Amino acid sequence: MNLTPLKTHKTFQGLTQFWEHDSAVTKTKMKFSTFIPEGKAKGCVIWLSGLTCTDENFITKAGAQKYLAEHQLMVICPDTSPRGLQLPGEHDTYDFGSGAGFYVDATVDGYKDHYRMYSYVNDELYSLIQKQFEVSAEHISIMGHSMGGHGALVLGLRNPGKYRSVSAFSPIVNPAQCPWGQKAFTGYLGSDASVWSQYDATELVSSGARHPAKILIDQGTQDEFLQKGQLLTQNFEGACKTAGQPYEVNYREQYDHSYYFIATFIESHIKFHASV
Amino acid sequence: MNLTPLKTHKTFQGLTQFWEHDSAVTKTKMKFSTFIPEGKAKGCVIWLSGLTCTDENFITKAGAQKYLAEHQLMVICPDTSPRGLQLPGEHDTYDFGSGAGFYVDATVDGYKDHYRMYSYVNDELYSLIQKQFEVSAEHISIMGHSMGGHGALVLGLRNPGKYRSVSAFSPIVNPAQCPWGQKAFTGYLGSDASVWSQYDATELVSSGARHPAKILIDQGTQDEFLQKGQLLTQNFEGACKTAGQPYEVNYREQYDHSYYFIATFIESHIKFHASV
Repeated sequence: MNLTPLKTHKTFQGLTQFWEHDSAVTKTKMKFSTFIPEGKAKGCVIWLSGLTCTDENFITKAGAQKYLAEHQLMVICPDTSPRGLQLPGEHDTYDFGSGAGFYVDATVDGYKDHYRMYSYVNDELYSLIQKQFEVSAEHISIMGHSMGGHGALVLGLRNPGKYRSVSAFSPIVNPAQCPWGQKAFTGYLGSDASVWSQYDATELVSSGARHPAKILIDQGTQDEFLQKGQLLTQNFEGACKTAGQPYEVNYREQYDHSYYFIATFIESHIKFHASV
Repeated sequence: MNLTPLKTHKTFQGLTQFWEHDSAVTKTKMKFSTFIPEGKAKGCVIWLSGLTCTDENFITKAGAQKYLAEHQLMVICPDTSPRGLQLPGEHDTYDFGSGAGFYVDATVDGYKDHYRMYSYVNDELYSLIQKQFEVSAEHISIMGHSMGGHGALVLGLRNPGKYRSVSAFSPIVNPAQCPWGQKAFTGYLGSDASVWSQYDATELVSSGARHPAKILIDQGTQDEFLQKGQLLTQNFEGACKTAGQPYEVNYREQYDHSYYFIATFIESHIKFHASV
């Protein structure tokens, strides 16, 4: 593993760092950020970001380092897509292509060689956490925001043995039924909607996928994308209720889709991952 | 006062907001951000940002809202210069002109009509805090980072009756003696260095300026600009010691010049302003 440190900043009782490496999965360079508490990390939470984000948004805006240090957890925040490519349509819109990998393994020509963010996170990054940062597999958990909340739910539900706990802020819980998801899945997976369900948290729960721990979700009631039908939180709640999947959805009055909302409740998510 | 709210985000127990208004002092539109806790703010801290920053950096990166809400304080964060102008050399370098107003009232032709950030903060913003946000003058304090730390020290020392307390992260304490300050002061005030001292915290203390409260400074030891001689922290310490100005400088091992450093220690600065 060719892992290059780009920047290091002492932050609370630990180090915020930025890294670059050659990815065998995406066949591009990939960037991620980490916060590593002083001493040995007891566990690692993977953070998956939302549309238009990079490896920088969470680590600069969420204010998580204080709580990660207190609970002796590290966080690792991958970029949201491969970079440096020139695929057809890749840079034309904010919700497809660069900055919008949607945590799927693409099957459409062109994209299928590089846009493999599902395997990048679940295999390559997961392995790297163990080998480079010496965190054992039983202490790796996953969370994310919006598109990244979708990614965290899907990865956690399909690989319950790999992720100790799963949480999300403002996740896209039923992408096969919302405009963002339909556009991305068509572009990455093709127009046969039957293959989309493997990447749809609500459909996964309905068809039998389970995570043994409670899944934690926080959702702002003034979130414009909730109001526009992109998130469909209640579809996931309904599926979990019917299927007996343990879950907790906290609707937060007046909060929106932004990092100001995430910063307000990140402490409770870190406590959750530390306690499972 | 023509004050336009641009964006509002519920954050912890309060509101993060972005504003624009027509400034009578700079004769341009000016932007600032605020955080206002629920209920009535007991006081207001003015935050002055550093080179290249806007009204957004502190409010998105410092993680201050949690502590401001706890202490019932509001914060107001002005932009670092007028915008929308095309003065000679204004946009050529990061350390002069746009994003680099240095909290002085320029006297050089062209700049003197707009680059009046000293009076913008000390008169127009100060008045706006009282009239628009209903905070009384005896509960207004000031802090800042780097160039903004310089601004906070100078404003506080020259107007001890207007600012209840003064603090700074990584301030440029002796701009007349460092490359950043010499370039900016030459450009805004001309080459006669005798007029620069009114904007130099170390020279102000040496020539008799005092603030009744202790001045609080935090400075990272791994700050590259400390190492490059831009900050000159010890010059201010020496002047305060000689003059009997109460001060506290905390050198923080391993921390640098970034917002990761600010985020780590912002709680202690907010507690300081709440307690004076």
